[in-house]
Amino acid sequence: MRLGTVFYHDFELLDAYGPLEMFGALGDKIELVTIAQEAGPVSSSVGPKTLADYGFDDAPALDLILIPGGIGTIPELKNEALLNFLRQRCPQSQVTMSVCTGSALLAKAGLLDGLAATSNKMFFELARSQGDNVEWRESARWVDAGQYVTSSGVSAGTDMALAVIERVFGAELAEQVMNYTEYQWHRHADDDPFAQFLNQGVTPS
Amino acid sequence: MRLGTVFYHDFELLDAYGPLEMFGALGDKIELVTIAQEAGPVSSSVGPKTLADYGFDDAPALDLILIPGGIGTIPELKNEALLNFLRQRCPQSQVTMSVCTGSALLAKAGLLDGLAATSNKMFFELARSQGDNVEWRESARWVDAGQYVTSSGVSAGTDMALAVIERVFGAELAEQVMNYTEYQWHRHADDDPFAQFLNQGVTPS
Repeated sequence: MRLGTVFYHDFELLDAYGPLEMFGALGDKIELVTIAQEAGPVSSSVGPKTLADYGFDDAPALDLILIPGGIGTIPELKNEALLNFLRQRCPQSQVTMSVCTGSALLAKAGLLDGLAATSNKMFFELARSQGDNVEWRESARWVDAGQYVTSSGVSAGTDMALAVIERVFGAELAEQVMNYTEYQWHRHADDDPFAQFLNQGVTPS
Repeated sequence: MRLGTVFYHDFELLDAYGPLEMFGALGDKIELVTIAQEAGPVSSSVGPKTLADYGFDDAPALDLILIPGGIGTIPELKNEALLNFLRQRCPQSQVTMSVCTGSALLAKAGLLDGLAATSNKMFFELARSQGDNVEWRESARWVDAGQYVTSSGVSAGTDMALAVIERVFGAELAEQVMNYTEYQWHRHADDDPFAQFLNQGVTPS
């Protein structure tokens, strides 16, 4: 089982690394690979850099795909190389996951048409405006539409990851991962404490 | 205000990136820098690599220091270069934070002598055995001893980070960061749901 995370410049750190912590705790049950348009350094929105192992051209086959969000989503909505990589790879995956504004990229690629999905609450319109044929949910910690699972903002991705681990690897292993990482799992996809901030996007100041 | 995170090979992803997400959400109030013994790629325990901006020799002055834990802690307990970097830099910091087994490194460096501290619950003995003169707390999400703040395993670091943000930057900003990252803050340092797993260290299987 191989999980590929698609990094791009100005990605949000926890969108990627919260889920990767949970999947990584599965040990030799999974291989984690990092992908970007070109292999090499990719800056997060707050500075710290990730090193992408693969470019779009040489990325291996992927069972699971993770797409983080972040301020960098906005320019990527016009990046046909990234959108085409998603169009090519996501339909072949067992599960494709997005966190935060990552669902805007999936919607723009046309991959969420006819499906239910969610996104970051404070910046919800960014995702909604990318897909008229998506059933957007304004109140959901995450939405499991089968092959595509989309989560709300930042921390919600970690809760979604545990739900996908439970579905793919079983409840016992999800519980072990939770305890190993001392993580208090928000288990209910429909319980969304942050829906109250819908489109009130402000950065701390 | 500058926060330096000390990376080493086989660090635990969320130990570093949970807190860095929270501090990063402070925007231009803080600069995040990444440090390792040598600048360049550093592998996490599950594969994905971070790029360290600075080596120990050229790291800039640091107001805040973050030390992640992970399986990589064990060899680093014998790494005098890292221990000396901590001995040199942490006493000059406003706040030094450790996550998980990161407190074993602080204890080994002698920096926690006479202070209260905690560590990862499943692997508690690893930290305790590094410092006979530390007041080790077996049940604590995190322990704030002033200049040194130590947290329990993995996810607990994110809760500690919000507590340090509250102390250094104020409660209003901590609340904004929590909402921006859609994070449900575990606010009580003494409430430790994972103390029940003391020294029962097992990896998911």
